Amino acid sequence: MKVTQRVRRILAHYESDNPGTKANLARILMQGKLAGTGKLVILPVDQGFEHGPARSFAPNPAAYDPHYHFQLAVDAGLSAYAAPLGMIEAGADAFAGAIPTILKVNSANSLSTNKDQAVHGSVKDALRLGCAAIGFTIYPGSEDQYEMMEEIRALAEEAKSSGLAVVMWSYPRGGKLTREGETAIDVTAYAAHMACLLGAHIVKVKPPTAHLFDDNAKKTYESQKIPIATLADRIRHVVQSCFDGRRLVVFSGGEAKDLAGILGEVREIYAGGASGSIIGRNTFQRPRDEALAMLDAIIQIYQGKAQAGARERELAAAK
Amino acid sequence: MKVTQRVRRILAHYESDNPGTKANLARILMQGKLAGTGKLVILPVDQGFEHGPARSFAPNPAAYDPHYHFQLAVDAGLSAYAAPLGMIEAGADAFAGAIPTILKVNSANSLSTNKDQAVHGSVKDALRLGCAAIGFTIYPGSEDQYEMMEEIRALAEEAKSSGLAVVMWSYPRGGKLTREGETAIDVTAYAAHMACLLGAHIVKVKPPTAHLFDDNAKKTYESQKIPIATLADRIRHVVQSCFDGRRLVVFSGGEAKDLAGILGEVREIYAGGASGSIIGRNTFQRPRDEALAMLDAIIQIYQGKAQAGARERELAAAK
Amino acid sequence: MKVTQRVRRILAHYESDNPGTKANLARILMQGKLAGTGKLVILPVDQGFEHGPARSFAPNPAAYDPHYHFQLAVDAGLSAYAAPLGMIEAGADAFAGAIPTILKVNSANSLSTNKDQAVHGSVKDALRLGCAAIGFTIYPGSEDQYEMMEEIRALAEEAKSSGLAVVMWSYPRGGKLTREGETAIDVTAYAAHMACLLGAHIVKVKPPTAHLFDDNAKKTYESQKIPIATLADRIRHVVQSCFDGRRLVVFSGGEAKDLAGILGEVREIYAGGASGSIIGRNTFQRPRDEALAMLDAIIQIYQGKAQAGARERELAAAK
Amino acid sequence: MKVTQRVRRILAHYESDNPGTKANLARILMQGKLAGTGKLVILPVDQGFEHGPARSFAPNPAAYDPHYHFQLAVDAGLSAYAAPLGMIEAGADAFAGAIPTILKVNSANSLSTNKDQAVHGSVKDALRLGCAAIGFTIYPGSEDQYEMMEEIRALAEEAKSSGLAVVMWSYPRGGKLTREGETAIDVTAYAAHMACLLGAHIVKVKPPTAHLFDDNAKKTYESQKIPIATLADRIRHVVQSCFDGRRLVVFSGGEAKDLAGILGEVREIYAGGASGSIIGRNTFQRPRDEALAMLDAIIQIYQGKAQAGARERELAAAK
Amino acid sequence: MKVTQRVRRILAHYESDNPGTKANLARILMQGKLAGTGKLVILPVDQGFEHGPARSFAPNPAAYDPHYHFQLAVDAGLSAYAAPLGMIEAGADAFAGAIPTILKVNSANSLSTNKDQAVHGSVKDALRLGCAAIGFTIYPGSEDQYEMMEEIRALAEEAKSSGLAVVMWSYPRGGKLTREGETAIDVTAYAAHMACLLGAHIVKVKPPTAHLFDDNAKKTYESQKIPIATLADRIRHVVQSCFDGRRLVVFSGGEAKDLAGILGEVREIYAGGASGSIIGRNTFQRPRDEALAMLDAIIQIYQGKAQAGARERELAAAK
Repeated sequence: MKVTQRVRRILAHYESDNPGTKANLARILMQGKLAGTGKLVILPVDQGFEHGPARSFAPNPAAYDPHYHFQLAVDAGLSAYAAPLGMIEAGADAFAGAIPTILKVNSANSLSTNKDQAVHGSVKDALRLGCAAIGFTIYPGSEDQYEMMEEIRALAEEAKSSGLAVVMWSYPRGGKLTREGETAIDVTAYAAHMACLLGAHIVKVKPPTAHLFDDNAKKTYESQKIPIATLADRIRHVVQSCFDGRRLVVFSGGEAKDLAGILGEVREIYAGGASGSIIGRNTFQRPRDEALAMLDAIIQIYQGKAQAGARERELAAAK
Repeated sequence: MKVTQRVRRILAHYESDNPGTKANLARILMQGKLAGTGKLVILPVDQGFEHGPARSFAPNPAAYDPHYHFQLAVDAGLSAYAAPLGMIEAGADAFAGAIPTILKVNSANSLSTNKDQAVHGSVKDALRLGCAAIGFTIYPGSEDQYEMMEEIRALAEEAKSSGLAVVMWSYPRGGKLTREGETAIDVTAYAAHMACLLGAHIVKVKPPTAHLFDDNAKKTYESQKIPIATLADRIRHVVQSCFDGRRLVVFSGGEAKDLAGILGEVREIYAGGASGSIIGRNTFQRPRDEALAMLDAIIQIYQGKAQAGARERELAAAK
Repeated sequence: MKVTQRVRRILAHYESDNPGTKANLARILMQGKLAGTGKLVILPVDQGFEHGPARSFAPNPAAYDPHYHFQLAVDAGLSAYAAPLGMIEAGADAFAGAIPTILKVNSANSLSTNKDQAVHGSVKDALRLGCAAIGFTIYPGSEDQYEMMEEIRALAEEAKSSGLAVVMWSYPRGGKLTREGETAIDVTAYAAHMACLLGAHIVKVKPPTAHLFDDNAKKTYESQKIPIATLADRIRHVVQSCFDGRRLVVFSGGEAKDLAGILGEVREIYAGGASGSIIGRNTFQRPRDEALAMLDAIIQIYQGKAQAGARERELAAAK
Repeated sequence: MKVTQRVRRILAHYESDNPGTKANLARILMQGKLAGTGKLVILPVDQGFEHGPARSFAPNPAAYDPHYHFQLAVDAGLSAYAAPLGMIEAGADAFAGAIPTILKVNSANSLSTNKDQAVHGSVKDALRLGCAAIGFTIYPGSEDQYEMMEEIRALAEEAKSSGLAVVMWSYPRGGKLTREGETAIDVTAYAAHMACLLGAHIVKVKPPTAHLFDDNAKKTYESQKIPIATLADRIRHVVQSCFDGRRLVVFSGGEAKDLAGILGEVREIYAGGASGSIIGRNTFQRPRDEALAMLDAIIQIYQGKAQAGARERELAAAK
Repeated sequence: MKVTQRVRRILAHYESDNPGTKANLARILMQGKLAGTGKLVILPVDQGFEHGPARSFAPNPAAYDPHYHFQLAVDAGLSAYAAPLGMIEAGADAFAGAIPTILKVNSANSLSTNKDQAVHGSVKDALRLGCAAIGFTIYPGSEDQYEMMEEIRALAEEAKSSGLAVVMWSYPRGGKLTREGETAIDVTAYAAHMACLLGAHIVKVKPPTAHLFDDNAKKTYESQKIPIATLADRIRHVVQSCFDGRRLVVFSGGEAKDLAGILGEVREIYAGGASGSIIGRNTFQRPRDEALAMLDAIIQIYQGKAQAGARERELAAAK
């Protein structure tokens, strides 16, 4: 399939990157059912590391098998599949060339007592495994945030010079942040902006709430009348905070569990102008048929198809 | 001896590994009395580092001599012998080619005040000593867990590119873990899963108890009705947590001391579908004849021989 | 598009390669109109280096522009585009993600007095430019052949560890070889075999003649009654010489200049079981419309389509 | 434009630096409306990192776009543009050669609980992005100050050997420093002096107050009758503290928000003999026209033009 | 001065280069009297290396002083100054920032018995000396040509990753080339094309004669009716051979010695669409006033000024 004008315009925003990195971004943007639209849906499977295998896979035991996720991502027509080293190693040969992969190179686990992650993958790993990108989590606000930023600096420099893309999960936590503050709109926009400043090509954040955590920020949001009432408003603000749309930004599925809730959220995310969704747990914890149906519904929303619902047409029209 | 179909199927699971690493896994799987069965029994002798020489070897003073352990592993028809640098150096020439060795590259000692280990061996050491693999311990949950994971990341990358296999001892401890939690089934399955995610070829964990440590995990185990009543159930769950059986997982001997207890436990481990046992102290602290007899009994269990006992035939049949 | 079974069987032949290299082979085999068929047609544009710009591009001056070739390869639905550093640099960004590229890392020129080539590209170049493979020419028989083989050894080692594929142009010349000997069937099969032995993933040779250059070889060909009467016979022998079909082997267009001659030759190459064609001069020296029509006819032959001609159906049937 | 005698005299002060570093200093000093005067005005945009996107850019939403700042710096005829990695990456190609850039290689954020910064850029980044200098913040007084100084030591060593200049933001904070002490004249002069001692080519500090923080310093200031009554006096003292004027020292805009306040402060800074201003928030938070007008007024002050006001003519005359 | 649209279009041709390299190309293209026109005149002073000091500088003894050449290039408003290591070292500080410099990193001398050059400068040298580019000579056709190409490969890779530009002098000689063949149009176009293929940003060749050296090439030139009658025709053909104008190509002054001859040649070069001239001996061997007048006349030609014709007639008459 030829690279579309829309995708070429997106690639042009990555103006300091070498053609290798742009080609890998193109591979992601030209993959699956959303190929060429400039939108993307990524399947991330790092739940096992974060919460353990039972909490991740017991609801759908087929998901204990690493091949399950590769196959699901391929069959659902997704844009990319992201996972830690072992998961990629366990399927990279069987699925060579089938779907772009993102090597998640650091991870936390729920046994940890601090807000940090272990770096357990390398750029060399990503190259030998044929990955299109490395993925890295930062915890803005955490006591270890600066060390994490320094880790990704070195990894990103090597990745970029090797023609790989860099995806950053920016999850505020730790330090003075309250639980509510972690997903506050001011904090989320800030976290997304910092990922861009650190050189991310694709940013992943959580859908923000209307909460305002920081008092100084609150004054600005109120005095400047920044619209944050609806999720679509907030998404739009995050997109703007990602270099005014010059960087791809995708949103995780949040806490929603039922299908209507998920699709409603995705409609708002789409209406807000986000680049797409990254949706893990809500996917692989469902039976495969349900997961495929749900992903297809999500993809149709990002395709801007009529049947996706009245709500986002309104929102898109109002935009 | 030709590599059996069973072993070739196991090797095929290591799909991203180079033939050098697969050949070293094959050397272990085609060694000794269990050659070709897909099962393995490993002799580890890192007790001296962990608890000091007297506590380790005084019960059977012949074991002060490093050659003793090489010879025992060979005579018992085991699959591999694992030990720290000095122990391997002291016998690697005399036993060159006699048995696959695993260079344990980090160790703790009982004088330590923190939950960490010293990295005292290298991939270059493993190559010059003719080892088939490096071995490494991580302590999931410890304050130093992320640093340990970063150490094995670098070592594993080098080992794999040099055609060596990587064995990970995954022993939860430290941090918020209680003593009971260290061997809880949820924690053990999690620890085994993380070793797989970190890229281990062979995982070693302790036989788990039916205890559930983490409250969130507990909810999942109960709501999903994950069977954990018998040891065999729990082993099966750990095997599943190791990429649904795509990674070899072996179990240590636990706390049991008498022969019946050991064999009973091994029967459960076998019934649960584990890849084998790694059994140190219970071996070399016994007089040589007794040790050889015990190891032969264990091996017979893994060979699935009739005389191994009624219990595991039942369990195997029920599987 | 999902990786086809046919392509997966081909990838399985590259059994010691890491998933990165296989993914890059898959990118080539899943590109363009021949995607998934296991056949490939590559556009190589190193003529400018070998014979100078006027001899290469004057017949079709649009071809002086490097973008012309990228666009032609994309529009014709080819499998890959191969060229030296400067040509790739001049279009790699505009065509990022549009077609797999092969960085030709060495070249000769017609001013040279010896049978050698300059290495003018690197694996780092290939990575930053997003190439799927490096390409390298060896001159079996030349006084410099061993040095050339040593150069590709180092480059191939680095390429393979970085997840790139290696394409080798194996062109016998120099030393005691006569002009006629350069394309003799014994010499061509030998040259193709040596490229395989040197670790090539894809081999490029010229269509061999029925001439037998080496007296000792001649005895074998005659005593063993190796069929070399038709071009299809000879192609079949070369394919066999490439590890009995375990390596992809493509053939250049030879000296033929008129369309009927080219297509007739391609039909024989197809009938002989070759993996495909690599066709440069005959492509870009034609007006673009004619080139596209010719490439389409060639691709139809490799697609095994009925209209491709009676001759190769007969040959394929006889096979 | 030829390098002026004034600029050559300034460059001569950097007598141990190589011509590459001097050429980059010259690029900054020969750029824009102040070219050749020995004065400089720099646009820094690290506010987004320090305070988040909304607090930085909501007052003037066009400023969410990284290109906005490059264009503003060019159109206003400024000397250089300083920003963190992502901001430079997002415009370095579009504005290649348009204005000298300073890669700010470390940053703090307002979610942090400690007085440190993350190093998120490298000298290699600065070279590939065509920057004239790296910028680095130290926090004299902070618990992490020595580590920060050690970081800049390594970066500055590499930058200088690569022909780049080093700009240091020296912002006292943390440790025993009071809020008032952070901008006290003794502390500011001390901070500027330390940046010079650490090898900075250009020092940035805040306009100091007449407060004296340190009791021992206070005795000296009083006994030696160091004039610190007016801002111009204090600026003169800071300039003197920067190797008696052998190092360029620029002042940030402080807290002032209204135009009269800003220009009045700049007049004092100019009168005190400073090398120039570095003015971020006050610039890009204004509508573009107002920002351009303000910057033009500031530049006129540094050009010593008559219309810039009576006050600094008096001060300059008194000097 | 703002980067002009014309220059930005030229920079866009270097699509795989990083912003650092583009900024250095922009520095050259935005320097001196031709700033912004897309044309450039470079002063090269490597004559001393090539022919010795007396043959180079005795006609104008002021030229023994390295500062003389820097000053001449600045005063004449040239685009860049190119010289070997020592010459640059001797003036880089005094002229820091005054003019872009090109470090000529290899040189031959007339005492040599082979057609090769010594590599006597490095990318690190270029960075510490503040150069915008490295310069390198290749001798296509020489017995050592491939080694020279391999040297520039490594140097260019390092230069490009460090944000420097690469200028290649492509001078056919040696091997089977006749003296007349060295400047034959087919050989010159070939040499320019090879420099582009090797990754040069700026190519320097000699003005070609109408001679055709290679018999095969001759057939093409004749059958394709490539116009080569006038120098402008031939220049146009060389420009086309440089990726159809996507690479900057400049021409040396050739053998002409009198002013009318030089200017006449430059007019043809300009008429043929070349990017500019690189003119050494003819410059610095003249008295400074005459050199400045001549360079001004040349620059006026590249500025496309109507009066350029009359002006040099006067100068020539006055001489």
